[in-house]
Amino acid sequence: MFRERLAQDAARIQKQFDLVLGALSDVDVTQAMSYATQGGKRLRGFLVLESARMHQVDIDRAIWPATGIEALHAYSLVHDDLPCMDDDDLRRGRPTVHMKWDEGTAVLAGDALHTLAFELCTRPEVGTADIRADLALTLAQASGAQGMVLGQALDIAAETAASPLTLSEITRLQAGKTGALIEWSAGAGARLAQADPAPLRQYAQALGLAFQIADDILDVEGDAEKAGKRLQKDARAGKATFVSLLGLDAAKARASELVDEACAALTGYGASAETLKDAARFVISRDS
Amino acid sequence: MFRERLAQDAARIQKQFDLVLGALSDVDVTQAMSYATQGGKRLRGFLVLESARMHQVDIDRAIWPATGIEALHAYSLVHDDLPCMDDDDLRRGRPTVHMKWDEGTAVLAGDALHTLAFELCTRPEVGTADIRADLALTLAQASGAQGMVLGQALDIAAETAASPLTLSEITRLQAGKTGALIEWSAGAGARLAQADPAPLRQYAQALGLAFQIADDILDVEGDAEKAGKRLQKDARAGKATFVSLLGLDAAKARASELVDEACAALTGYGASAETLKDAARFVISRDS
Repeated sequence: MFRERLAQDAARIQKQFDLVLGALSDVDVTQAMSYATQGGKRLRGFLVLESARMHQVDIDRAIWPATGIEALHAYSLVHDDLPCMDDDDLRRGRPTVHMKWDEGTAVLAGDALHTLAFELCTRPEVGTADIRADLALTLAQASGAQGMVLGQALDIAAETAASPLTLSEITRLQAGKTGALIEWSAGAGARLAQADPAPLRQYAQALGLAFQIADDILDVEGDAEKAGKRLQKDARAGKATFVSLLGLDAAKARASELVDEACAALTGYGASAETLKDAARFVISRDS
Repeated sequence: MFRERLAQDAARIQKQFDLVLGALSDVDVTQAMSYATQGGKRLRGFLVLESARMHQVDIDRAIWPATGIEALHAYSLVHDDLPCMDDDDLRRGRPTVHMKWDEGTAVLAGDALHTLAFELCTRPEVGTADIRADLALTLAQASGAQGMVLGQALDIAAETAASPLTLSEITRLQAGKTGALIEWSAGAGARLAQADPAPLRQYAQALGLAFQIADDILDVEGDAEKAGKRLQKDARAGKATFVSLLGLDAAKARASELVDEACAALTGYGASAETLKDAARFVISRDS
Protein backbone atom coordinates (compact mmCIF):
# COMPACT_ATOMS: atom_id res chain seq x y z
CA MET A 1 0.00 0.00 0.00
CA PHE A 2 2.58 2.55 1.15
CA ARG A 3 5.18 1.82 -1.54
CA GLU A 4 2.64 2.20 -4.37
CA ARG A 5 1.24 5.38 -2.85
CA LEU A 6 4.75 6.80 -2.38
CA ALA A 7 5.62 6.06 -6.02
CA GLN A 8 2.37 7.62 -7.28
CA ASP A 9 2.86 10.71 -5.15
CA ALA A 10 6.48 11.04 -6.25
CA ALA A 11 5.34 11.01 -9.90
CA ARG A 12 2.62 13.58 -9.17
CA ILE A 13 5.17 15.87 -7.47
CA GLN A 14 7.56 15.46 -10.40
CA LYS A 15 4.79 16.57 -12.77
CA GLN A 16 4.24 19.66 -10.61
CA PHE A 17 7.96 20.47 -10.61
CA ASP A 18 7.99 20.14 -14.42
CA LEU A 19 5.10 22.60 -14.61
CA VAL A 20 6.55 25.12 -12.18
CA LEU A 21 10.20 24.95 -13.27
CA GLY A 22 9.28 24.76 -16.96
CA ALA A 23 7.84 28.27 -16.66
CA LEU A 24 11.19 29.78 -15.60
CA SER A 25 13.86 31.33 -17.85
CA ASP A 26 16.17 28.67 -19.27
CA VAL A 27 19.50 29.46 -17.59
CA ASP A 28 22.06 27.21 -15.84
CA VAL A 29 20.51 27.93 -12.45
CA THR A 30 17.02 26.75 -13.43
CA GLN A 31 18.46 23.64 -15.11
CA ALA A 32 20.33 22.91 -11.89
CA MET A 33 17.09 23.44 -9.94
CA SER A 34 15.33 20.80 -12.08
CA TYR A 35 18.24 18.39 -11.75
CA ALA A 36 18.32 18.79 -7.96
CA THR A 37 14.62 18.02 -7.63
CA GLN A 38 14.73 14.79 -9.65
CA GLY A 39 14.74 11.41 -7.94
CA GLY A 40 14.76 10.85 -4.22
CA LYS A 41 12.09 9.17 -2.12
CA ARG A 42 9.92 12.31 -1.74
CA LEU A 43 8.92 11.15 1.72
CA ARG A 44 8.18 14.73 2.84
CA GLY A 45 5.91 15.45 -0.10
CA PHE A 46 4.17 12.12 0.44
CA LEU A 47 3.53 13.06 4.09
CA VAL A 48 1.86 16.30 2.98
CA LEU A 49 -0.34 14.53 0.42
CA GLU A 50 -1.25 11.60 2.66
CA SER A 51 -2.11 13.76 5.68
CA ALA A 52 -4.18 15.94 3.33
CA ARG A 53 -6.14 12.84 2.19
CA MET A 54 -6.81 11.95 5.83
CA HIS A 55 -8.48 15.37 6.15
CA GLN A 56 -10.40 15.16 2.83
CA VAL A 57 -8.30 17.99 1.39
CA ASP A 58 -8.30 18.17 -2.43
CA ILE A 59 -4.97 16.96 -3.86
CA ASP A 60 -4.98 19.89 -6.31
CA ARG A 61 -4.55 22.13 -3.26
CA ALA A 62 -2.14 19.90 -1.31
CA ILE A 63 0.17 19.36 -4.28
CA TRP A 64 1.54 22.92 -3.88
CA PRO A 65 2.92 22.61 -0.34
CA ALA A 66 3.91 18.98 -1.13
CA THR A 67 6.06 20.26 -4.01
CA GLY A 68 7.17 23.20 -1.84
CA ILE A 69 8.57 21.00 0.94
CA GLU A 70 10.43 18.91 -1.65
CA ALA A 71 11.90 22.13 -3.07
CA LEU A 72 13.02 23.10 0.41
CA HIS A 73 14.48 19.63 1.02
CA ALA A 74 16.30 19.78 -2.34
CA TYR A 75 17.79 23.19 -1.47
CA SER A 76 19.11 21.80 1.82
CA LEU A 77 20.75 18.85 0.04
CA VAL A 78 22.38 21.03 -2.65
CA HIS A 79 23.90 23.33 -0.02
CA ASP A 80 24.78 20.41 2.29
CA ASP A 81 26.74 18.71 -0.51
CA LEU A 82 28.94 21.79 -1.15
CA PRO A 83 32.70 21.39 -0.62
CA CYS A 84 32.55 23.83 2.33
CA MET A 85 29.84 21.71 3.97
CA ASP A 86 29.71 17.87 3.67
CA ASP A 87 31.74 17.87 0.42
CA ASP A 88 29.80 15.13 -1.34
CA ASP A 89 30.30 14.37 -5.03
CA LEU A 90 27.46 11.86 -5.30
CA ARG A 91 23.74 12.22 -4.51
CA ARG A 92 20.94 9.84 -5.52
CA GLY A 93 23.50 7.98 -7.64
CA ARG A 94 24.42 11.03 -9.74
CA PRO A 95 27.01 13.81 -9.52
CA THR A 96 26.00 16.53 -7.05
CA VAL A 97 25.01 19.95 -8.48
CA HIS A 98 28.38 21.61 -7.81
CA MET A 99 30.13 18.71 -9.57
CA LYS A 100 27.86 18.82 -12.62
CA TRP A 101 27.88 22.64 -12.83
CA ASP A 102 29.99 24.62 -10.36
CA GLU A 103 29.79 25.87 -6.78
CA GLY A 104 28.33 29.27 -7.66
CA THR A 105 25.50 27.64 -9.61
CA ALA A 106 24.89 25.25 -6.69
CA VAL A 107 24.65 28.11 -4.19
CA LEU A 108 22.22 30.02 -6.44
CA ALA A 109 20.11 26.99 -7.41
CA GLY A 110 19.77 26.13 -3.71
CA ASP A 111 18.78 29.71 -2.93
CA ALA A 112 16.16 29.72 -5.68
CA LEU A 113 14.70 26.37 -4.54
CA HIS A 114 14.55 27.79 -1.00
CA THR A 115 12.54 30.80 -2.20
CA LEU A 116 10.39 28.56 -4.39
CA ALA A 117 9.27 26.59 -1.33
CA PHE A 118 7.69 29.71 0.16
CA GLU A 119 6.16 30.72 -3.16
CA LEU A 120 4.50 27.31 -3.56
CA CYS A 121 3.09 27.39 -0.01
CA THR A 122 1.54 30.84 -0.47
CA ARG A 123 0.06 30.54 -3.96
CA PRO A 124 -3.68 31.30 -4.12
CA GLU A 125 -4.41 27.70 -5.20
CA VAL A 126 -3.40 26.43 -1.74
CA GLY A 127 -6.44 27.80 0.07
CA THR A 128 -7.54 30.73 2.20
CA ALA A 129 -5.05 33.38 3.24
CA ASP A 130 -5.24 32.02 6.80
CA ILE A 131 -4.01 28.64 5.63
CA ARG A 132 -1.31 30.07 3.35
CA ALA A 133 0.09 32.44 5.99
CA ASP A 134 0.06 29.59 8.55
CA LEU A 135 1.92 27.21 6.20
CA ALA A 136 4.55 29.84 5.37
CA LEU A 137 5.14 30.88 8.98
CA THR A 138 5.39 27.33 10.30
CA LEU A 139 7.64 26.31 7.40
CA ALA A 140 9.96 29.23 8.21
CA GLN A 141 10.05 28.23 11.87
CA ALA A 142 10.80 24.60 10.97
CA SER A 143 13.56 25.36 8.48
CA GLY A 144 15.46 28.32 9.91
CA ALA A 145 17.84 28.98 12.79
CA GLN A 146 15.42 27.41 15.31
CA GLY A 147 14.89 24.33 13.12
CA MET A 148 16.78 22.71 10.27
CA VAL A 149 19.63 25.24 10.05
CA LEU A 150 20.17 25.01 13.82
CA GLY A 151 20.50 21.23 13.41
CA GLN A 152 23.03 21.72 10.60
CA ALA A 153 24.96 24.24 12.72
CA LEU A 154 25.08 21.80 15.65
CA ASP A 155 26.28 19.12 13.21
CA ILE A 156 29.16 21.31 12.02
CA ALA A 157 30.05 22.31 15.58
CA ALA A 158 30.17 18.61 16.53
CA GLU A 159 32.93 17.98 13.99
CA THR A 160 35.39 20.18 15.84
CA ALA A 161 34.10 19.48 19.37
CA ALA A 162 36.58 18.05 21.89
CA SER A 163 34.36 15.03 22.65
CA PRO A 164 31.71 13.16 20.62
CA LEU A 165 28.08 14.18 21.13
CA THR A 166 25.96 12.57 23.84
CA LEU A 167 22.66 10.84 23.09
CA SER A 168 20.63 13.87 24.17
CA GLU A 169 22.78 16.21 22.05
CA ILE A 170 22.49 14.02 18.97
CA THR A 171 18.73 13.74 19.50
CA ARG A 172 18.45 17.56 19.61
CA LEU A 173 20.61 17.80 16.49
CA GLN A 174 18.39 15.33 14.63
CA ALA A 175 15.19 17.03 15.80
CA GLY A 176 16.42 20.16 14.02
CA LYS A 177 18.28 18.78 11.05
CA THR A 178 15.69 16.33 9.76
CA GLY A 179 12.89 16.17 12.35
CA ALA A 180 11.46 19.68 12.00
CA LEU A 181 10.68 19.36 8.29
CA ILE A 182 9.23 15.86 8.62
CA GLU A 183 7.01 17.17 11.42
CA TRP A 184 5.92 20.12 9.29
CA SER A 185 5.16 17.80 6.36
CA ALA A 186 2.94 15.47 8.34
CA GLY A 187 1.16 18.38 10.02
CA ALA A 188 0.50 20.15 6.70
CA GLY A 189 -2.58 18.06 5.86
CA ALA A 190 -4.22 19.13 9.12
CA ARG A 191 -3.19 22.75 8.53
CA LEU A 192 -4.72 22.64 5.05
CA ALA A 193 -8.01 21.62 6.70
CA GLN A 194 -7.51 24.07 9.61
CA ALA A 195 -7.60 21.07 11.95
CA ASP A 196 -5.32 20.36 14.94
CA PRO A 197 -1.91 19.18 13.65
CA ALA A 198 -0.84 17.80 17.08
CA PRO A 199 -1.43 14.03 16.53
CA LEU A 200 0.25 14.10 13.12
CA ARG A 201 3.18 16.08 14.52
CA GLN A 202 3.55 13.55 17.34
CA TYR A 203 3.55 10.76 14.75
CA ALA A 204 6.18 12.63 12.74
CA GLN A 205 8.45 13.29 15.71
CA ALA A 206 8.72 9.57 16.37
CA LEU A 207 8.97 8.82 12.65
CA GLY A 208 11.73 11.41 12.11
CA LEU A 209 13.85 10.00 14.90
CA ALA A 210 13.28 6.42 13.68
CA PHE A 211 14.24 7.56 10.18
CA GLN A 212 17.54 9.02 11.42
CA ILE A 213 18.39 5.92 13.44
CA ALA A 214 17.61 3.81 10.35
CA ASP A 215 19.92 6.10 8.33
CA ASP A 216 22.71 5.56 10.83
CA ILE A 217 22.14 1.80 10.64
CA LEU A 218 22.21 1.94 6.82
CA ASP A 219 25.45 3.94 6.96
CA VAL A 220 27.00 0.92 8.71
CA GLU A 221 25.15 -2.01 7.13
CA GLY A 222 23.97 -0.61 3.80
CA ASP A 223 24.97 -1.07 0.18
CA ALA A 224 26.44 2.09 -1.34
CA GLU A 225 25.07 1.27 -4.77
CA LYS A 226 21.48 0.95 -3.55
CA ALA A 227 21.83 4.03 -1.34
CA GLY A 228 23.16 6.11 -4.23
CA LYS A 229 25.64 7.87 -1.94
CA ARG A 230 28.90 7.11 -0.15
CA LEU A 231 28.47 5.19 3.11
CA GLN A 232 30.40 4.80 6.36
CA LYS A 233 31.38 8.46 6.15
CA ASP A 234 30.30 9.03 9.77
CA ALA A 235 32.36 6.16 11.16
CA ARG A 236 35.42 7.26 9.18
CA ALA A 237 34.97 10.83 10.42
CA GLY A 238 34.70 9.58 14.01
CA LYS A 239 31.26 11.18 14.37
CA ALA A 240 28.86 10.04 17.06
CA THR A 241 25.73 8.40 15.63
CA PHE A 242 22.82 6.55 17.21
CA VAL A 243 24.64 3.32 16.30
CA SER A 244 27.96 4.37 17.82
CA LEU A 245 26.20 5.51 21.00
CA LEU A 246 23.65 2.70 21.43
CA GLY A 247 25.26 -0.19 19.56
CA LEU A 248 23.65 -1.80 16.52
CA ASP A 249 21.13 -4.03 18.34
CA ALA A 250 19.87 -1.38 20.76
CA ALA A 251 19.61 1.11 17.88
CA LYS A 252 17.41 -1.32 15.96
CA ALA A 253 15.26 -1.93 19.06
CA ARG A 254 14.88 1.82 19.64
CA ALA A 255 13.85 2.41 16.02
CA SER A 256 11.24 -0.33 16.31
CA GLU A 257 9.90 1.19 19.55
CA LEU A 258 9.62 4.60 17.88
CA VAL A 259 7.63 3.11 15.02
CA ASP A 260 5.13 1.76 17.57
CA GLU A 261 4.94 5.20 19.19
CA ALA A 262 4.36 6.82 15.78
CA CYS A 263 1.51 4.46 14.98
CA ALA A 264 -0.08 4.92 18.43
CA ALA A 265 -0.25 8.69 17.90
CA LEU A 266 -2.64 8.15 14.97
CA THR A 267 -5.22 6.02 16.82
CA GLY A 268 -7.82 8.79 16.51
CA TYR A 269 -7.69 8.62 12.72
CA GLY A 270 -8.87 4.98 12.60
CA ALA A 271 -8.45 3.10 9.33
CA SER A 272 -7.60 6.25 7.36
CA ALA A 273 -4.15 6.22 9.01
CA GLU A 274 -3.15 2.81 7.65
CA THR A 275 -0.88 4.15 4.89
CA LEU A 276 0.99 6.40 7.32
CA LYS A 277 1.42 3.49 9.75
CA ASP A 278 2.71 1.41 6.86
CA ALA A 279 5.13 4.24 6.04
CA ALA A 280 6.50 4.17 9.59
CA ARG A 281 7.11 0.43 9.42
CA PHE A 282 8.78 0.83 6.01
CA VAL A 283 11.20 3.43 7.30
CA ILE A 284 13.06 0.92 9.46
CA SER A 285 12.98 -1.91 6.91
CA ARG A 286 14.26 0.01 3.87
CA ASP A 287 17.64 -0.77 2.28
CA SER A 288 18.29 2.65 0.72
CA MET B 1 14.68 65.17 5.97
CA PHE B 2 15.53 61.89 4.18
CA ARG B 3 18.96 61.37 5.77
CA GLU B 4 17.58 61.82 9.31
CA ARG B 5 14.64 59.52 8.59
CA LEU B 6 16.93 56.90 7.05
CA ALA B 7 19.21 56.98 10.11
CA GLN B 8 16.25 56.74 12.51
CA ASP B 9 14.74 53.85 10.58
CA ALA B 10 18.08 52.05 10.40
CA ALA B 11 18.36 52.27 14.19
CA ARG B 12 14.79 51.02 14.64
CA ILE B 13 15.50 48.05 12.34
CA GLN B 14 18.71 47.29 14.24
CA LYS B 15 16.70 47.19 17.49
CA GLN B 16 14.31 44.70 15.87
CA PHE B 17 17.18 42.51 14.66
CA ASP B 18 18.63 42.53 18.19
CA LEU B 19 15.26 41.39 19.55
CA VAL B 20 14.71 38.67 16.95
CA LEU B 21 18.27 37.32 16.72
CA GLY B 22 18.83 37.61 20.48
CA ALA B 23 16.11 34.97 20.95
CA LEU B 24 18.04 32.35 18.91
CA SER B 25 20.50 29.73 20.21
CA ASP B 26 23.98 31.17 20.57
CA VAL B 27 25.96 29.28 17.92
CA ASP B 28 28.41 30.48 15.25
CA VAL B 29 25.66 30.67 12.66
CA THR B 30 23.46 33.03 14.68
CA GLN B 31 26.48 35.21 15.54
CA ALA B 32 27.26 35.38 11.83
CA MET B 33 23.62 36.29 11.14
CA SER B 34 23.86 39.25 13.56
CA TYR B 35 27.18 40.35 12.09
CA ALA B 36 25.80 40.23 8.55
CA THR B 37 22.81 42.40 9.43
CA GLN B 38 24.86 45.18 11.06
CA GLY B 39 25.61 48.41 9.21
CA GLY B 40 24.56 49.18 5.67
CA LYS B 41 22.21 51.91 4.50
CA ARG B 42 19.03 49.87 5.11
CA LEU B 43 17.43 51.57 2.10
CA ARG B 44 15.03 48.65 1.55
CA GLY B 45 13.80 48.67 5.15
CA PHE B 46 13.41 52.44 4.99
CA LEU B 47 11.26 52.09 1.85
CA VAL B 48 8.96 49.68 3.68
CA LEU B 49 8.63 51.96 6.70
CA GLU B 50 8.23 55.18 4.71
CA SER B 51 5.63 53.74 2.32
CA ALA B 52 3.80 52.38 5.39
CA ARG B 53 3.73 55.90 6.90
CA MET B 54 2.26 57.23 3.66
CA HIS B 55 -0.61 54.77 4.17
CA GLN B 56 -1.04 55.47 7.90
CA VAL B 57 0.14 51.96 8.76
CA ASP B 58 1.37 51.53 12.34
CA ILE B 59 5.18 51.24 12.47
CA ASP B 60 4.87 48.39 14.98
CA ARG B 61 3.33 46.37 12.14
CA ALA B 62 5.59 47.62 9.33
CA ILE B 63 8.79 47.01 11.29
CA TRP B 64 8.44 43.23 10.71
CA PRO B 65 8.55 43.23 6.89
CA ALA B 66 11.07 46.12 7.04
CA THR B 67 13.38 43.91 9.10
CA GLY B 68 12.47 40.94 6.91
CA ILE B 69 13.57 42.60 3.67
CA GLU B 70 16.85 43.62 5.31
CA ALA B 71 17.34 39.99 6.38
CA LEU B 72 16.76 38.91 2.80
CA HIS B 73 19.15 41.57 1.48
CA ALA B 74 21.78 40.49 4.03
CA TYR B 75 21.44 36.84 2.94
CA SER B 76 22.01 37.84 -0.69
CA LEU B 77 25.16 39.79 0.21
CA VAL B 78 26.61 36.97 2.34
CA HIS B 79 26.15 34.45 -0.48
CA ASP B 80 27.25 36.96 -3.16
CA ASP B 81 30.53 37.56 -1.30
CA LEU B 82 31.44 33.83 -1.24
CA PRO B 83 34.63 32.77 -3.04
CA CYS B 84 32.55 30.80 -5.58
CA MET B 85 30.49 33.91 -6.35
CA ASP B 86 31.98 37.46 -6.30
CA ASP B 87 34.82 36.45 -3.94
CA ASP B 88 34.83 39.61 -1.82
CA ASP B 89 36.81 39.86 1.41
CA LEU B 90 35.43 43.25 2.45
CA ARG B 91 31.84 44.42 3.00
CA ARG B 92 30.70 47.61 4.72
CA GLY B 93 34.35 48.18 5.70
CA ARG B 94 34.65 44.87 7.59
CA PRO B 95 35.71 41.31 6.72
CA THR B 96 32.96 39.38 4.93
CA VAL B 97 31.26 36.54 6.84
CA HIS B 98 33.28 33.75 5.20
CA MET B 99 36.52 35.61 6.04
CA LYS B 100 35.55 36.17 9.68
CA TRP B 101 34.16 32.64 10.14
CA ASP B 102 34.37 30.17 7.25
CA GLU B 103 32.50 29.36 4.04
CA GLY B 104 30.23 26.74 5.60
CA THR B 105 29.08 29.19 8.27
CA ALA B 106 28.50 31.84 5.58
CA VAL B 107 26.33 29.47 3.52
CA LEU B 108 24.27 28.51 6.58
CA ALA B 109 23.98 32.04 8.00
CA GLY B 110 22.76 33.23 4.59
CA ASP B 111 20.27 30.37 4.44
CA ALA B 112 18.95 31.18 7.92
CA LEU B 113 18.60 34.91 7.09
CA HIS B 114 16.73 33.91 3.94
CA THR B 115 14.25 31.84 5.95
CA LEU B 116 14.01 34.58 8.58
CA ALA B 117 12.78 37.05 5.95
CA PHE B 118 9.71 34.89 5.31
CA GLU B 119 9.15 34.32 9.02
CA LEU B 120 9.18 38.07 9.71
CA CYS B 121 6.73 38.80 6.87
CA THR B 122 4.22 36.20 8.08
CA ARG B 123 4.25 36.81 11.84
CA PRO B 124 0.81 37.54 13.31
CA GLU B 125 1.95 41.06 14.32
CA VAL B 126 2.14 42.08 10.62
CA GLY B 127 -1.62 42.14 10.08
CA THR B 128 -4.42 40.02 8.67
CA ALA B 129 -3.66 36.68 7.02
CA ASP B 130 -4.52 38.26 3.65
CA ILE B 131 -1.75 40.81 4.09
CA ARG B 132 0.79 38.29 5.41
CA ALA B 133 0.17 35.75 2.62
CA ASP B 134 0.38 38.54 0.02
CA LEU B 135 3.68 39.86 1.43
CA ALA B 136 5.21 36.36 1.51
CA LEU B 137 4.08 35.43 -2.01
CA THR B 138 5.22 38.69 -3.60
CA LEU B 139 8.53 38.54 -1.70
CA ALA B 140 9.12 35.02 -3.04
CA GLN B 141 8.33 36.16 -6.57
CA ALA B 142 10.69 39.14 -6.25
CA SER B 143 13.61 37.20 -4.79
CA GLY B 144 13.59 33.84 -6.59
CA ALA B 145 14.41 32.52 -10.03
CA GLN B 146 12.08 35.07 -11.70
CA GLY B 147 13.56 37.97 -9.69
CA MET B 148 16.78 38.51 -7.76
CA VAL B 149 18.32 35.06 -8.35
CA LEU B 150 17.59 35.34 -12.09
CA GLY B 151 19.48 38.67 -12.09
CA GLN B 152 22.40 37.03 -10.28
CA ALA B 153 22.36 34.11 -12.74
CA LEU B 154 22.42 36.51 -15.70
CA ASP B 155 25.30 38.36 -14.01
CA ILE B 156 27.33 35.14 -13.72
CA ALA B 157 26.49 34.13 -17.31
CA ALA B 158 27.69 37.56 -18.50
CA GLU B 159 31.17 36.89 -17.10
CA THR B 160 31.79 34.05 -19.51
CA ALA B 161 29.75 35.43 -22.44
CA ALA B 162 31.56 35.94 -25.75
CA SER B 163 30.57 39.62 -25.94
CA PRO B 164 29.73 42.23 -23.29
CA LEU B 165 26.03 42.75 -22.44
CA THR B 166 23.93 45.24 -24.36
CA LEU B 167 22.04 48.07 -22.67
CA SER B 168 18.77 46.14 -22.76
CA GLU B 169 20.41 43.00 -21.33
CA ILE B 170 22.05 44.91 -18.51
CA THR B 171 18.77 46.66 -17.75
CA ARG B 172 17.02 43.28 -17.47
CA LEU B 173 19.84 41.98 -15.28
CA GLN B 174 19.53 44.99 -12.95
CA ALA B 175 15.73 44.75 -12.84
CA GLY B 176 16.17 41.28 -11.34
CA LYS B 177 19.31 41.60 -9.30
CA THR B 178 18.49 44.79 -7.38
CA GLY B 179 15.27 46.19 -8.88
CA ALA B 180 12.80 43.50 -7.80
CA LEU B 181 13.52 43.82 -4.08
CA ILE B 182 13.52 47.63 -4.15
CA GLU B 183 10.16 47.49 -5.91
CA TRP B 184 8.81 45.04 -3.34
CA SER B 185 10.06 47.26 -0.49
CA ALA B 186 8.38 50.42 -1.76
CA GLY B 187 5.16 48.54 -2.53
CA ALA B 188 5.04 46.93 0.93
CA GLY B 189 3.49 49.99 2.62
CA ALA B 190 0.56 49.88 0.20
CA ARG B 191 0.24 46.10 0.65
CA LEU B 192 0.17 46.55 4.44
CA ALA B 193 -2.82 48.88 3.93
CA GLN B 194 -4.34 46.65 1.22
CA ALA B 195 -4.04 49.61 -1.16
CA ASP B 196 -2.83 49.58 -4.80
CA PRO B 197 0.97 49.25 -4.84
CA ALA B 198 1.27 50.34 -8.52
CA PRO B 199 2.40 54.00 -8.08
CA LEU B 200 4.98 53.05 -5.43
CA ARG B 201 6.25 50.19 -7.60
CA GLN B 202 6.59 52.56 -10.55
CA TYR B 203 8.56 54.95 -8.32
CA ALA B 204 10.76 52.07 -7.21
CA GLN B 205 11.43 50.78 -10.72
CA ALA B 206 12.89 54.14 -11.70
CA LEU B 207 14.65 54.48 -8.34
CA GLY B 208 16.21 51.00 -8.59
CA LEU B 209 17.62 51.66 -12.03
CA ALA B 210 18.92 55.10 -10.95
CA PHE B 211 20.49 53.42 -7.92
CA GLN B 212 22.33 50.89 -10.10
CA ILE B 213 23.57 53.56 -12.51
CA ALA B 214 24.76 55.59 -9.49
CA ASP B 215 26.54 52.45 -8.21
CA ASP B 216 28.30 52.03 -11.55
CA ILE B 217 29.33 55.71 -11.46
CA LEU B 218 30.63 55.27 -7.90
CA ASP B 219 32.59 52.20 -8.98
CA VAL B 220 34.49 54.48 -11.37
CA GLU B 221 34.58 57.78 -9.47
CA GLY B 222 34.16 56.74 -5.86
CA ASP B 223 36.42 56.53 -2.82
CA ALA B 224 36.98 52.92 -1.67
CA GLU B 225 37.30 53.97 1.97
CA LYS B 226 33.93 55.75 2.01
CA ALA B 227 32.27 52.94 0.03
CA GLY B 228 33.62 50.29 2.46
CA LYS B 229 34.27 47.89 -0.40
CA ARG B 230 36.73 47.43 -3.26
CA LEU B 231 36.02 49.61 -6.30
CA GLN B 232 36.70 49.43 -10.04
CA LYS B 233 36.17 45.68 -9.92
CA ASP B 234 33.83 45.86 -12.90
CA ALA B 235 36.23 47.78 -15.11
CA ARG B 236 39.09 45.44 -14.22
CA ALA B 237 36.89 42.44 -14.97
CA GLY B 238 35.93 43.94 -18.35
CA LYS B 239 32.24 43.80 -17.39
CA ALA B 240 29.71 45.97 -19.19
CA THR B 241 28.13 48.58 -16.90
CA PHE B 242 25.83 51.52 -17.53
CA VAL B 243 28.94 53.72 -17.51
CA SER B 244 30.86 51.57 -20.00
CA LEU B 245 27.82 51.44 -22.29
CA LEU B 246 26.58 55.04 -22.03
CA GLY B 247 29.71 56.94 -21.02
CA LEU B 248 30.00 58.84 -17.74
CA ASP B 249 28.09 61.99 -18.76
CA ALA B 250 25.16 60.21 -20.39
CA ALA B 251 24.95 57.80 -17.42
CA LYS B 252 24.66 60.78 -15.05
CA ALA B 253 22.00 62.38 -17.27
CA ARG B 254 20.03 59.11 -17.41
CA ALA B 255 20.16 58.73 -13.62
CA SER B 256 18.89 62.28 -13.21
CA GLU B 257 16.05 61.65 -15.67
CA LEU B 258 15.06 58.48 -13.77
CA VAL B 259 14.90 60.43 -10.51
CA ASP B 260 12.43 62.82 -12.15
CA GLU B 261 10.38 59.84 -13.35
CA ALA B 262 10.42 58.35 -9.87
CA CYS B 263 9.17 61.57 -8.30
CA ALA B 264 6.46 62.00 -10.94
CA ALA B 265 5.02 58.56 -10.13
CA LEU B 266 4.19 59.77 -6.62
CA THR B 267 2.16 62.87 -7.61
CA GLY B 268 -1.03 61.32 -6.25
CA TYR B 269 0.45 61.14 -2.73
CA GLY B 270 0.89 64.95 -2.48
CA ALA B 271 3.09 66.27 0.30
CA SER B 272 3.27 62.91 2.08
CA ALA B 273 5.66 61.71 -0.64
CA GLU B 274 8.32 64.37 0.06
CA THR B 275 10.67 62.05 1.95
CA LEU B 276 10.58 59.42 -0.80
CA LYS B 277 11.24 62.10 -3.44
CA ASP B 278 14.14 63.31 -1.31
CA ALA B 279 15.38 59.71 -1.18
CA ALA B 280 15.38 59.49 -4.97
CA ARG B 281 17.40 62.70 -5.28
CA PHE B 282 19.84 61.44 -2.63
CA VAL B 283 20.49 58.19 -4.48
CA ILE B 284 22.30 59.95 -7.30
CA SER B 285 24.19 62.39 -5.08
CA ARG B 286 25.58 59.90 -2.54
CA ASP B 287 29.32 59.21 -2.24
CA SER B 288 29.08 55.71 -0.76
